[in-house]
Amino acid sequence: MRSAPRGNAATELVKMLIAGGVSVDSLAAAPTIADIRLLARRRLPRMAFDFVDGGADAENTLRANVADLAKVTFDPRSLVDVSTGDLSTTVTGERMPMPLLLGPAGSVRIFGGDGELSAVRAAGKAGLTYTISTASSWSIEEIAAEATGPLWFQLYMWRSPDIVRNLVKRAADVGCTALVVTIDVPVNGKRARDQRNGMSIPPQVTLRNAAGAIRHPAWLASLLRGPAIGFRNLQGIAEGSSAMSHQEYINTELVNLSATWDDIAWLRREWDGPLFVKGVMSLDDAEQAARVGADGIFVSNHGGRQLDSLPSSISVLPRMVDSFGDRLSIIFDGGVRSGGDVLKAKAIGADAAALGRSWVWGAAAAGERGVERVIDIYRSELRETMILLGKTSVDQIDRSVVHFPSEWSGGRAGVRS
Amino acid sequence: MRSAPRGNAATELVKMLIAGGVSVDSLAAAPTIADIRLLARRRLPRMAFDFVDGGADAENTLRANVADLAKVTFDPRSLVDVSTGDLSTTVTGERMPMPLLLGPAGSVRIFGGDGELSAVRAAGKAGLTYTISTASSWSIEEIAAEATGPLWFQLYMWRSPDIVRNLVKRAADVGCTALVVTIDVPVNGKRARDQRNGMSIPPQVTLRNAAGAIRHPAWLASLLRGPAIGFRNLQGIAEGSSAMSHQEYINTELVNLSATWDDIAWLRREWDGPLFVKGVMSLDDAEQAARVGADGIFVSNHGGRQLDSLPSSISVLPRMVDSFGDRLSIIFDGGVRSGGDVLKAKAIGADAAALGRSWVWGAAAAGERGVERVIDIYRSELRETMILLGKTSVDQIDRSVVHFPSEWSGGRAGVRS
Amino acid sequence: MRSAPRGNAATELVKMLIAGGVSVDSLAAAPTIADIRLLARRRLPRMAFDFVDGGADAENTLRANVADLAKVTFDPRSLVDVSTGDLSTTVTGERMPMPLLLGPAGSVRIFGGDGELSAVRAAGKAGLTYTISTASSWSIEEIAAEATGPLWFQLYMWRSPDIVRNLVKRAADVGCTALVVTIDVPVNGKRARDQRNGMSIPPQVTLRNAAGAIRHPAWLASLLRGPAIGFRNLQGIAEGSSAMSHQEYINTELVNLSATWDDIAWLRREWDGPLFVKGVMSLDDAEQAARVGADGIFVSNHGGRQLDSLPSSISVLPRMVDSFGDRLSIIFDGGVRSGGDVLKAKAIGADAAALGRSWVWGAAAAGERGVERVIDIYRSELRETMILLGKTSVDQIDRSVVHFPSEWSGGRAGVRS
Amino acid sequence: MRSAPRGNAATELVKMLIAGGVSVDSLAAAPTIADIRLLARRRLPRMAFDFVDGGADAENTLRANVADLAKVTFDPRSLVDVSTGDLSTTVTGERMPMPLLLGPAGSVRIFGGDGELSAVRAAGKAGLTYTISTASSWSIEEIAAEATGPLWFQLYMWRSPDIVRNLVKRAADVGCTALVVTIDVPVNGKRARDQRNGMSIPPQVTLRNAAGAIRHPAWLASLLRGPAIGFRNLQGIAEGSSAMSHQEYINTELVNLSATWDDIAWLRREWDGPLFVKGVMSLDDAEQAARVGADGIFVSNHGGRQLDSLPSSISVLPRMVDSFGDRLSIIFDGGVRSGGDVLKAKAIGADAAALGRSWVWGAAAAGERGVERVIDIYRSELRETMILLGKTSVDQIDRSVVHFPSEWSGGRAGVRS
Repeated sequence: MRSAPRGNAATELVKMLIAGGVSVDSLAAAPTIADIRLLARRRLPRMAFDFVDGGADAENTLRANVADLAKVTFDPRSLVDVSTGDLSTTVTGERMPMPLLLGPAGSVRIFGGDGELSAVRAAGKAGLTYTISTASSWSIEEIAAEATGPLWFQLYMWRSPDIVRNLVKRAADVGCTALVVTIDVPVNGKRARDQRNGMSIPPQVTLRNAAGAIRHPAWLASLLRGPAIGFRNLQGIAEGSSAMSHQEYINTELVNLSATWDDIAWLRREWDGPLFVKGVMSLDDAEQAARVGADGIFVSNHGGRQLDSLPSSISVLPRMVDSFGDRLSIIFDGGVRSGGDVLKAKAIGADAAALGRSWVWGAAAAGERGVERVIDIYRSELRETMILLGKTSVDQIDRSVVHFPSEWSGGRAGVRS
Repeated sequence: MRSAPRGNAATELVKMLIAGGVSVDSLAAAPTIADIRLLARRRLPRMAFDFVDGGADAENTLRANVADLAKVTFDPRSLVDVSTGDLSTTVTGERMPMPLLLGPAGSVRIFGGDGELSAVRAAGKAGLTYTISTASSWSIEEIAAEATGPLWFQLYMWRSPDIVRNLVKRAADVGCTALVVTIDVPVNGKRARDQRNGMSIPPQVTLRNAAGAIRHPAWLASLLRGPAIGFRNLQGIAEGSSAMSHQEYINTELVNLSATWDDIAWLRREWDGPLFVKGVMSLDDAEQAARVGADGIFVSNHGGRQLDSLPSSISVLPRMVDSFGDRLSIIFDGGVRSGGDVLKAKAIGADAAALGRSWVWGAAAAGERGVERVIDIYRSELRETMILLGKTSVDQIDRSVVHFPSEWSGGRAGVRS
Repeated sequence: MRSAPRGNAATELVKMLIAGGVSVDSLAAAPTIADIRLLARRRLPRMAFDFVDGGADAENTLRANVADLAKVTFDPRSLVDVSTGDLSTTVTGERMPMPLLLGPAGSVRIFGGDGELSAVRAAGKAGLTYTISTASSWSIEEIAAEATGPLWFQLYMWRSPDIVRNLVKRAADVGCTALVVTIDVPVNGKRARDQRNGMSIPPQVTLRNAAGAIRHPAWLASLLRGPAIGFRNLQGIAEGSSAMSHQEYINTELVNLSATWDDIAWLRREWDGPLFVKGVMSLDDAEQAARVGADGIFVSNHGGRQLDSLPSSISVLPRMVDSFGDRLSIIFDGGVRSGGDVLKAKAIGADAAALGRSWVWGAAAAGERGVERVIDIYRSELRETMILLGKTSVDQIDRSVVHFPSEWSGGRAGVRS
Repeated sequence: MRSAPRGNAATELVKMLIAGGVSVDSLAAAPTIADIRLLARRRLPRMAFDFVDGGADAENTLRANVADLAKVTFDPRSLVDVSTGDLSTTVTGERMPMPLLLGPAGSVRIFGGDGELSAVRAAGKAGLTYTISTASSWSIEEIAAEATGPLWFQLYMWRSPDIVRNLVKRAADVGCTALVVTIDVPVNGKRARDQRNGMSIPPQVTLRNAAGAIRHPAWLASLLRGPAIGFRNLQGIAEGSSAMSHQEYINTELVNLSATWDDIAWLRREWDGPLFVKGVMSLDDAEQAARVGADGIFVSNHGGRQLDSLPSSISVLPRMVDSFGDRLSIIFDGGVRSGGDVLKAKAIGADAAALGRSWVWGAAAAGERGVERVIDIYRSELRETMILLGKTSVDQIDRSVVHFPSEWSGGRAGVRS
């Protein structure tokens, strides 16, 4: 610690300024995921930012996801020897360095740069599992080529068994260890912001959004670099018209309104590894998932992007854990914005949390470095929160360290108990 | 999906702009009823917009209607074969293509254009029931002449049995299938916004609102086209002074503070078809409605326009259904702004929902096309929400798919249980 | 109703403007008490407006008074013959034309004009009881000289029995029918706004508030007209220094920290008529009031101006009524802003409501005419609300027509049940 | 009271202005702690203001501390003889003139002026206990030299027993009567605002915060006066690099992740006087504190600066008092901003409250005079609130005078009862 004699004030100010330095690395200085989101917002035109930021309809569920996580409070223990701390956990036999994985997100190139490739590289460096989305803007193989960590593959149960079988086989071929089948998108949710912004996939520049696009030339140039944005996973196996929008194509060609749990049972036979069912919000669906042999579920309302007025993910987690925690691995997703949020889900009984918007904001803010920063933030928050809770391993974190509203436990439907 | 080689960035931008197109049809691009409302607000001077948007006194009930619907959450089922979906339902023997009807609204010409005529045409195209208001700015016969779908007739129990009998007979003559008698307007509610704006019927331009009127010349011109705005249903049978305002005339000449359930019993004998009592918020009134032989009730607080500090409509619906669902058809009205809201009411046990402000906003925004757009929004939201709930028919939608606050069930009055 | 042929649009607009008229009487056009408040705000410099509008400390209680009244909802009955309606009620044997009285407020000349004289004249015209405040800016006799309706007298239990006896005797001499002794001002509450504004009694113009005073010259002139603002009731019997501020004088010369229920028992012997104890918020104090022979209580937290963090008045009313409704008359005060609020208190079991800020805002807005307008608003809201509740007399209004939060009933202290 | 004849209006205005005076002493005119905070904000650049004002992460706990105190309401008694009032109380045998002490805060010179020296002088004048922080910007001895009232010493259980023993011995040597050992800082909480502002200890001027620093030259000059800001208590016993930031140094050199309750047991043997454990939020930790022989605990979440999403301090106080009130002295800290807040904690069962931000804001606003003003505000608020509650001694204030939410009593963890 300095205690040198002090000089003249003006001189001192200049010295301080020199010592303080002129670093303006806003990414490194961004302390929280909320700050990363703001960096992403600055880089993107509204049509692109809203595409990741927005939710379905009135966005009740989107808000509830975040607001309800804030209602969970901690009951910490102090003066525990926390000189050693183990953030790692095991999910369906797979060791994870943190109770955290990068959940599926598609069309990430829309946010500029390399999209999914940036994220899978950053995940690999951290040893985190990355989930390839069927709807990613790079193919399974292109993403896998950049991966140095574990991969999972997210699957839509599209109309053609051939397409599904093709995707599953390719996922196996590149070494994906688990399959995550999404069940909450029989139709696309209604994203009011996208409609207002004239947003489509591939993005189209219209009078409605041209001004925003032109004000972000770096973003626009990035869109025009590389292959056109679309479903590269379906290239060669499912040909759509170039004029057809993302939503149109999905709604008319791929979605399968007839899919049932029998199809998951069939998938179960096709796939040897761990199988997760993603988008489970009712106890009935969890029961079905267990019945057809799924290894786990994602308790998820699709980040508030599908059916609006679903309850928050965290508010249904206690019942899910109480009813199925012994039979199913449970991945939590919905509103996670901090390491504390991850540990709230873990304490209630989830095995791990999946990130969605968090890593996409990172990619949008600064590509691979952005996703690395996001992972760093989560890692240090997890470590710090675990220490402050008085635990030396995330697997010790259980309900003894949290409080949550009593109405989150109890009855199944109808009147809220 | 395109994967053509990419050209020069500037050329590409121009191409995208051309491909994106220059459509600026704000009606077609309006994704939600909230957007339609904003279009209406742009078209109308404040005095007219507030006339439909506002409620009574401090507008506690107006806000509660919307806020409480957001407290209902869904408990969905996935992986149900929803390839077929049936939105139709039956209310008092009448088949409806959706669990939705256009409820009564009067003086619609105040919002410009053809008023009720636009709406009845749009309803007809969709096969939706349209409810003619006694206070409509066109006569029963004028509206019926434009109708191609079912009609109901809304009736005030005014002082003179002759006037009432005249109205009922005319409604029968034009083929109205059901009668909806409004019981919650013994006096007009106090619409503070209208008083602040100097709003009356017919609208008067005063120093207080002249600026707004002049800034909306299309609206002003539309007012001046066609017949003067007033109660055309009463022309020839009840003559008021031309100088008397709407509210004065109703309060002094028509309202019947002596009306009782005996009058409904009398009306029951006068009318053969289905009879609904509109404006039922207490279990006692529902009991009376059943006693005098009504077929159904509208659970309604008049959109928060009559007695302020009534509870929200949705919060009294569970008790109504539990007590009278087996004896009365129940139409829900109050705060409905989306297909999801309609299905919340349906799930709790209403037979259908009646739209009020929604369709008036549509008419104000773009006349007949505006109401069509409103109906399209509801239809697609109903279909999508039903699919996401895992149901193939709206009639399957019951309490197993919703949660609501426990205090909405239970005791009758006094302390809230 | 007009149906004359329509002329040219521009001509028509001019005709409408002429017909609409150029009235700009903002008082007559003010539909609610909230509007009257805004008129008062426009007329007053901030130091004066805040003196009536503000509350103690963080103003938690001030806000709770209003917010909790909005939590009471109505359970109405329709189709009751309400062609006759009786707003009158009886409190301690005194017939009141409405369940409403003008509660005590002092120093009203600070808000310009005639202060209390305006109010007592307006109350007299309506036959409403006016409560003379000990701290009024006119003497008991000066106010009584203008009164044409019933008078009550509000008393502080000041240090000197001689002063108290003098005041009580004078109140009796001018014909006051009831005595209202205030018990919640052993010291003045801390009005943070007044301290920020440099407000005192008599008001002083300082650098802190001079700008506001100068921008309201009519207000300033009105202050300078007539006698200096001070405690005219104490003139001749208690002489303070002219330099001493209102608060200083009260705190040093008059307040009586030693007052106990024995003093009320003494007062009970001194005064033959009805005796009310004002400022009762605990069941213990109500018990004491009954014990010493009071006829009634004001359930009141002094409008949030004394002890902050008191519960809202309405939230303690149910327990008060349940425990003492059969032994004490109960006047409700705190947050009343509409006829509906009055009927909520009446329904829970209060005998009448006392107005405070409402009538002071009226006086500040437009003197006697302003108070008349306030009374008119309450009268018409009371009448309309009673009709919409399906009652023909305010005395029929009981708990069958209201819901309120269940935690307002039950236990006495400590944990909120 | 003046009743002199009134002169001409303009003359009168000038007279009033002269009489009113031109005092602009904003400190004396600041009525509440919230006003003192605003004065501090005006004096400080954002980086310094946020350092005291901010909390950890999303600041959920910071907000909850204040919001939950507002949920406690009073149940007062009137007409008690309160002519004598005793604010004094006894904590672990030490007489306090008010149930209030200055809790530990470090690095106070960052807010300008003399920092801790100002505060200890002001505390001494009022006879209040001042808690010297290990991290203070003056040494134990330098602070003690200015003290005229009781001193406590706050201790971190740093890695080296020698350093700890050295600090404890010095505290004893200067006459500290109690030891307060902080247990909730095994690592520093994440202060997002500080990271955004580029705030460190000693403060560094960087491009990110230079503008703010330059706009507050008095503050900057004050920083440069006197010794460099750092841990003067560690000078000579623990040498850090001059380039190392506060947080780095603490995290790498001093923090002791291995500390356990055994270390407190050891400390208990080292220190004869009263021993408090600060940062207890769980019943388990309170149990441990009692077990190892602590005399008391600080129920504290470190002002929301350590683990975010801890419950508010006040919401855990009832359970703490119910379980340990008979075995441990309980100091309350977290969100206290008024005398009323202190009495809420006292009523629930705390022995006294410790101030944190309150006195630091005072020091930042006006040095010693600012802290004196803060103490004066608390004293007068305590006195006034006690009178309005009808109590003559703070030690009479118990649960009979408060209500609080029922969920604050009851179960230990997991589901909130």
